[in-house]
Amino acid sequence: MHVYLNGEVVPLEQARVSVEDRGFLFGDGVYEVMRALPSGLFAEEAHWHRLQRGIQELKLTTPEGFNKARVGDISQTLLEANGFVGKQATVYLQLTRGAAPRNNAFPPAGTPPTLYMSASPFQVPWTQRKEGVSTVLLPDLRWARCDLKTVNLLPNILAKQQAREAGVFEALLVRDGVITEGASTSAFFVMDGTLLTHPKDERILPGVTRDIVLGLARELKIPVQERAVRVDERDRFQEVFLAGTTTDVQPVIAVNGARVGAGKPGPVTLALQQALLQRMGIEAPA
Amino acid sequence: MHVYLNGEVVPLEQARVSVEDRGFLFGDGVYEVMRALPSGLFAEEAHWHRLQRGIQELKLTTPEGFNKARVGDISQTLLEANGFVGKQATVYLQLTRGAAPRNNAFPPAGTPPTLYMSASPFQVPWTQRKEGVSTVLLPDLRWARCDLKTVNLLPNILAKQQAREAGVFEALLVRDGVITEGASTSAFFVMDGTLLTHPKDERILPGVTRDIVLGLARELKIPVQERAVRVDERDRFQEVFLAGTTTDVQPVIAVNGARVGAGKPGPVTLALQQALLQRMGIEAPA
Repeated sequence: MHVYLNGEVVPLEQARVSVEDRGFLFGDGVYEVMRALPSGLFAEEAHWHRLQRGIQELKLTTPEGFNKARVGDISQTLLEANGFVGKQATVYLQLTRGAAPRNNAFPPAGTPPTLYMSASPFQVPWTQRKEGVSTVLLPDLRWARCDLKTVNLLPNILAKQQAREAGVFEALLVRDGVITEGASTSAFFVMDGTLLTHPKDERILPGVTRDIVLGLARELKIPVQERAVRVDERDRFQEVFLAGTTTDVQPVIAVNGARVGAGKPGPVTLALQQALLQRMGIEAPA
Repeated sequence: MHVYLNGEVVPLEQARVSVEDRGFLFGDGVYEVMRALPSGLFAEEAHWHRLQRGIQELKLTTPEGFNKARVGDISQTLLEANGFVGKQATVYLQLTRGAAPRNNAFPPAGTPPTLYMSASPFQVPWTQRKEGVSTVLLPDLRWARCDLKTVNLLPNILAKQQAREAGVFEALLVRDGVITEGASTSAFFVMDGTLLTHPKDERILPGVTRDIVLGLARELKIPVQERAVRVDERDRFQEVFLAGTTTDVQPVIAVNGARVGAGKPGPVTLALQQALLQRMGIEAPA
């Protein structure tokens, strides 16, 4: 496996950062995961826009010549170097505030940022997509800026691990009685025939796939409302699904052991799943 | 500078971790900063206890033979290797969940953790200790487990940087109308002659120096109460100070531009500062 680190494409084993990298010492950085399809990077513009926003909000600096075209070129180089061209893959990008003697405040001006990118093979788990997955409700322990895609991911990790130990696919996070989103996915609900998802604010990540799904729902004339969905409404959930870069539209058939709707993927979910796959140019196996 | 990384003492320049280290990818680790005095590591037991608790809560694994004596030995080796013996210094320790292909849930059992330790020279900023510092109130954006000393430090960094840009020493963090603590320090208040500090719960870091200061206050017969102090009580603050491993007892003379008490370090603060220095075996210059 070859990866990109600060200007060079190197074997993964040689890709190492200083122990003083602020990514390692503080989680002081942002990241993106993009989907590479045979047709190219999917939703590249939206990922780039979110990355730019994170860089601005955290006042990170970028390497010289860092722009969307350059990220696209590096992605392509990594896909080629690893034999993923024409196949499905993911591209990971992480930018940190670079290496400097440990100090909580920002390092001296001119400290070079660290840019790491990698590509990984990806296969759609079709059976899971078709049959649906179970979820568990867990407290949302995250900070007050969940709208930033930073590498401060400990609460997400702990929730994901708890979900795994509970034998389910995802943790749905609950803050102040509201299901905000999944540990690494956006959460959607169908109630009274309306598609609901948390509004974009500081309590959720502005999901790229979330926005695409909302657009597809509007195209399909599905009533849509962006509002906080409360845990105590869950008896009324007709359908639930997760959305994300590597999750597509993933039906949820159980929450905390209780069946959602008829206990199988519902019509709104399946229509959106199909529409998203079509947008991506992917076909489900027969 | 020589540092310790996974069993070896190496020049800092050679101390590098994999880009797949979960410290770098997720901030998935804990840390400690200890004070090395000519007499040895200060409050070694309390730091060790807190580290153990963090390891247990996050279900981290430790390298073979990892125990308090081993950490003491490595500390001593680093102090010697860098010429800090008999001088003041700090010892930093960070333990992460190790390097593994990126996956939110925990890596496979048997993944070796990463242990990094370093030593840095330290000098007490005597003028600042004597004259006091200013602070600024900022929203506490942190997660719901501030009692864990993890390397998910982005909210602390952003607050510290804002404090620096405001030209002050520390940010006092406010959650739900309560001053929880500083971005990297514990916060103490004197009101009506009573020493107040936030109770130990999930909203503050259980500060090692905090506990020592409370013990010293009790020895000095200063009335002590562990309770949440509200921002709207601030007109009644007679004294404010910060406490921490590298902060000792640091008088605060202003909060958000408003003078605290007489605008100079108060008697309770100075008595506790003196008592702590005595406990540490340090003497302030005349």
